Amino acid sequence: MDASPARTPVGAVTDPMKEERVALLDGIRGPRDLKALSPEQLARLADEIRTFLVESVAKTGGHLGPNLGVVELTIAMHRVFESPRDKILFDTGHQSYVHKIVTGRKDGFDRLRQADGLSGYPSRAESEHDVIENSHASTVLSWADGLAKAYQVRGQTDRHVVAVIGDGALTGGMAWEALNNIAAAKDRPVIIVVNDNERSYGPTQGGLADHLATLRTTRGYERFLEWGKGVLGRTPVVGGPVYDMLHGAKKGLKDAVAPQGLFEDLGLKYVGPIDGHDVEAVENALRRARGFGGPVIVHAITQKGKGYAHAVNDAADQFHAVGVINPETGLPVKKSGASWTSVFADEIVAVADEREDVVGITAAMLIPVGLHKFAAKYPERVFDVGIAEQHAVTSAAGLATGGLHPVVAVYATFLNRAFDQVLMDVALHRCGVTFVLDRAGVTGPDGASHNGMWDMSILQVVPGLRLAAPRDAAQVRAQVREAMDVDDAPTVVRFGKGAVGPDIEAVGRIDGMDVLRRTGPERNGGGEGGDVLIVTVGQMAETGIEVADRLADQGIAATVVDPRWVKPVPAGLAPLAARHRLVVTIEDNGRAGGVGAAIAQSMRDARVDVPLRDFGIPQEFLDHAERNEVLARIGLNAQDISRQVVEEIASKTAEADAEQHETTA
Amino acid sequence: MDASPARTPVGAVTDPMKEERVALLDGIRGPRDLKALSPEQLARLADEIRTFLVESVAKTGGHLGPNLGVVELTIAMHRVFESPRDKILFDTGHQSYVHKIVTGRKDGFDRLRQADGLSGYPSRAESEHDVIENSHASTVLSWADGLAKAYQVRGQTDRHVVAVIGDGALTGGMAWEALNNIAAAKDRPVIIVVNDNERSYGPTQGGLADHLATLRTTRGYERFLEWGKGVLGRTPVVGGPVYDMLHGAKKGLKDAVAPQGLFEDLGLKYVGPIDGHDVEAVENALRRARGFGGPVIVHAITQKGKGYAHAVNDAADQFHAVGVINPETGLPVKKSGASWTSVFADEIVAVADEREDVVGITAAMLIPVGLHKFAAKYPERVFDVGIAEQHAVTSAAGLATGGLHPVVAVYATFLNRAFDQVLMDVALHRCGVTFVLDRAGVTGPDGASHNGMWDMSILQVVPGLRLAAPRDAAQVRAQVREAMDVDDAPTVVRFGKGAVGPDIEAVGRIDGMDVLRRTGPERNGGGEGGDVLIVTVGQMAETGIEVADRLADQGIAATVVDPRWVKPVPAGLAPLAARHRLVVTIEDNGRAGGVGAAIAQSMRDARVDVPLRDFGIPQEFLDHAERNEVLARIGLNAQDISRQVVEEIASKTAEADAEQHETTA
Repeated sequence: MDASPARTPVGAVTDPMKEERVALLDGIRGPRDLKALSPEQLARLADEIRTFLVESVAKTGGHLGPNLGVVELTIAMHRVFESPRDKILFDTGHQSYVHKIVTGRKDGFDRLRQADGLSGYPSRAESEHDVIENSHASTVLSWADGLAKAYQVRGQTDRHVVAVIGDGALTGGMAWEALNNIAAAKDRPVIIVVNDNERSYGPTQGGLADHLATLRTTRGYERFLEWGKGVLGRTPVVGGPVYDMLHGAKKGLKDAVAPQGLFEDLGLKYVGPIDGHDVEAVENALRRARGFGGPVIVHAITQKGKGYAHAVNDAADQFHAVGVINPETGLPVKKSGASWTSVFADEIVAVADEREDVVGITAAMLIPVGLHKFAAKYPERVFDVGIAEQHAVTSAAGLATGGLHPVVAVYATFLNRAFDQVLMDVALHRCGVTFVLDRAGVTGPDGASHNGMWDMSILQVVPGLRLAAPRDAAQVRAQVREAMDVDDAPTVVRFGKGAVGPDIEAVGRIDGMDVLRRTGPERNGGGEGGDVLIVTVGQMAETGIEVADRLADQGIAATVVDPRWVKPVPAGLAPLAARHRLVVTIEDNGRAGGVGAAIAQSMRDARVDVPLRDFGIPQEFLDHAERNEVLARIGLNAQDISRQVVEEIASKTAEADAEQHETTA
Repeated sequence: MDASPARTPVGAVTDPMKEERVALLDGIRGPRDLKALSPEQLARLADEIRTFLVESVAKTGGHLGPNLGVVELTIAMHRVFESPRDKILFDTGHQSYVHKIVTGRKDGFDRLRQADGLSGYPSRAESEHDVIENSHASTVLSWADGLAKAYQVRGQTDRHVVAVIGDGALTGGMAWEALNNIAAAKDRPVIIVVNDNERSYGPTQGGLADHLATLRTTRGYERFLEWGKGVLGRTPVVGGPVYDMLHGAKKGLKDAVAPQGLFEDLGLKYVGPIDGHDVEAVENALRRARGFGGPVIVHAITQKGKGYAHAVNDAADQFHAVGVINPETGLPVKKSGASWTSVFADEIVAVADEREDVVGITAAMLIPVGLHKFAAKYPERVFDVGIAEQHAVTSAAGLATGGLHPVVAVYATFLNRAFDQVLMDVALHRCGVTFVLDRAGVTGPDGASHNGMWDMSILQVVPGLRLAAPRDAAQVRAQVREAMDVDDAPTVVRFGKGAVGPDIEAVGRIDGMDVLRRTGPERNGGGEGGDVLIVTVGQMAETGIEVADRLADQGIAATVVDPRWVKPVPAGLAPLAARHRLVVTIEDNGRAGGVGAAIAQSMRDARVDVPLRDFGIPQEFLDHAERNEVLARIGLNAQDISRQVVEEIASKTAEADAEQHETTA
């Protein structure tokens, strides 16, 4: 077996009908089944896994490129370590498909990321082999440090902790904090596998990337080993004595030919670089690492998308995450319409054309957050800081203090990482920084840690911050511009994931708020009151309108308003509320401390004690499913909301009748 | 001038009456005045500044040790750079006193940290020389990167950005994110001054500390320069040609004798290590750094507390921050009583005695958060992770997953740094981790970024998290234990700063909540209703009781309850509220999304539409002053609250009367 060249022919997928293709894979029901395989069988298994991944993910969508890159790495880890007693941890978790396949979950892939189906990330509910469910990057080394400390404190020194982290995730500050701690205890073993594909979502940024590149290209040691393999010969058994001896070569020799630099400066043992597609090489490195008895880095070079030509050749992100695709062509099966992101992407270029002071910042997600067009046109004005949200935000404060207007474009859920920086650096210093939060609200298939359901609550506490939730494409364009005009406070524009619906025209204005609907038999025009005031936030406008229409069917008059800017709560809202019997708020955000709660507080402060019912996401972690399925499950749709409002109005009417009766009796 | 030995005699302070002592210092009205001084004068000035600092901070309290350590460093920076056109940035800012003195603010030191007096941190309101007000650590490099990018985009290439960061702050992940970005742009100058005193609050932890120690002790280059000074001779003028040439020695020579390791691995130029108490050496290093035209690290070795024997000899933290002290003895003028922290410190040792699974985590603040006794008794069970809150929290998730129960003890305001980790690592994974939040609520003299006014709002959104706010020492002890008994969810115990008051006994219990007072003419015993339900949170119990007593004087009956656990809101609260005319909540936390808002939401959900008035901290950044002064300023005291409640009840009574009148008329 020559492990170095790609085992899977780069190009089309193997014929799905070919019988022997699944022979090996079907026999893998758990990690133990891997251990009996010969090197030749391992190579075949890797091929089978790749074919399976391409065909399966093509049908469901999911993270394809990252998983094609870690096939051999994952096989090797499960052959060398004893999961679940040893812990194999994945950073971000989107590269855990192979791990799922070899831990008995292959059959679940037909319902990957679907309601009640397999999660796209590790899930403790699925398997005892899974540990970390959090898909936010750069956490794995801290988990590993904690687990290793626990085993040390408990005297379980025979348990190993293995953490897989991408080179991109090493740009996150958390990873550095953890490395610094892991390195401090020379007698506490943690095996850090750096899965180095020279990119995270996009090419990795910064000095670290340059350093890794240096290590990567100084392949003297590897070349020496290749030479050794040829000269000394070796048995076909992985881990044969001569080869093992060589791979376990004295540190002195290794040091002479491979630079370890940064990692060893921190006091971390370094093994590598290793060809991450050579199962045998990876296994040997892992065995050496396992034997060290202290913290060690295993630096594996992999290719994202490996074995699937369409992925390898994709310059953008090697099919990092795909929707449903045709496996033969790699092309999307259905073309999606204009997305929230694309509307922003075009508008920010238009703004940048007009204003030289506008700069963009992304945390390693240039395309997903829609800054790519801006960057293409004005490369010197867009900064990709790596997976480093904290730095993104505080450097934005610096940029603003230096006289520019930065736009930090980030997924809503990832802004959590920089809450303190938004508060203490941007807001406290009254910097004009605009945050564009993409994938806000229920996003669905990526599960709990990808839903953007926290931002409108935690940002409520930030003094001076103004937050807009556009309801449609026209509002995205308008509100991004309004946000960019504020130069002495943080501004936020948040919108959802995927396709944006048709524009929703206002039918009127009340105190600066858009009126989207007025209904009911009495049709209290001009905002002069009625039964129910419905306040909608962002993309929930459509739902609010439908609620109003359903209430109208029951003879209940409603006014639907979109405040557009929801923080601070518009001054006109409490007086408007006072002219209704019930206020209903609808937001695509956690209920605790959300916009509804803020409106309720503003009403209390104005001494308007009209009852309010706040509809939003219950404060719990949501299982993965399609957005609409999740909304239905949590009752955040027109049907459920209108039903509850009808009941509420009915009970109020009954109460009022009873009171009336009491008084007149 | 021989700059190497300490210029100020280590020991007692110079006679305060000695006339020439202030002669130089009084002439310094701005950075320009520094430039005319001779080396001898600079040495005298440093002495004068130290004497001034000791005498002044002894009277007001403040950060003494850190400022004594940066006297020469600060003088040198202001001589080499042109503030405010060049930007001199301080990380955390507590070491900016010397900077304040040399930028014309010496006379303000008699009101340091007092209401309307000088801030203990940089303040843009005070001076155009100040930039960063945020006192949370590790931010400065991101600020510097942003400013440097702004100057580059705007073509202002002649402006320099200098960032001063302690070695301790380099353990924070943000600093790493920034270093990685700064290193990526070889043509964008940022001068990073590492102020290396081998500790932050306590000895710096981790692999980085070890690496700095290596650099520190490899003094070949410095020794060579010392030799060079002797052999080649030099003029007394700082920056004389021969000496300059030597200090500007070719990189080749320098590299041969000094390891730069980690920093140069990242592509950063490295100058040092430099004696940070040698103005001339620092100036030369800064001039070389200024000339590089790219990012560069200047590594200065300083001594915290330098020149004041009591500080230097203090093993704990070199007088990092002191209260009012006797300058001759270094001893506190008044002995403070038992503090919230000390109650926790003793109790956690008692818990650790009983439970082997309990471990402690601190982010470089072992003593301030009260884990020092635990660490002294069980050193292998307490982990100091450095200034790395993110790692503290996620490694706690790992520890919990490994079968232990970690206690993360941290200042309330610094938990902001790890919000995402509390949410996604601890809560999502249902880990039994207890957070003990010290310095919660209004803390006062340290200003906006030290008030712990955010925690009870942002933590409301965390699913499953339970939060306790003990009102007194007895409750701290009880609630810490209750928290430690929860093993499947994050728990939080938050308390205030400074002395804890006497224990407040409950006079009864209603549905698990402590009743602290029942008042009024009707004395509706047994929680059976009354005019006003007062819900107090933590240390606001005393205020709530006083409000009740004041209301009683006006004939208004009140029930004061302390729910003890405020998240989730106790189920019994809404029914209890329903038996009152008005609910008042009092918390030492921002009003937006706080406990009051959560109680209001729980009442809405229970269809209890009794009016509620939530008293808390207005959502704004609070200027520094004593806690009581701040509370009075924001109206969060018994006097203001009771006045508003009386008005409210009066207007409700008037409304009811009018309604009654209408009905009967």
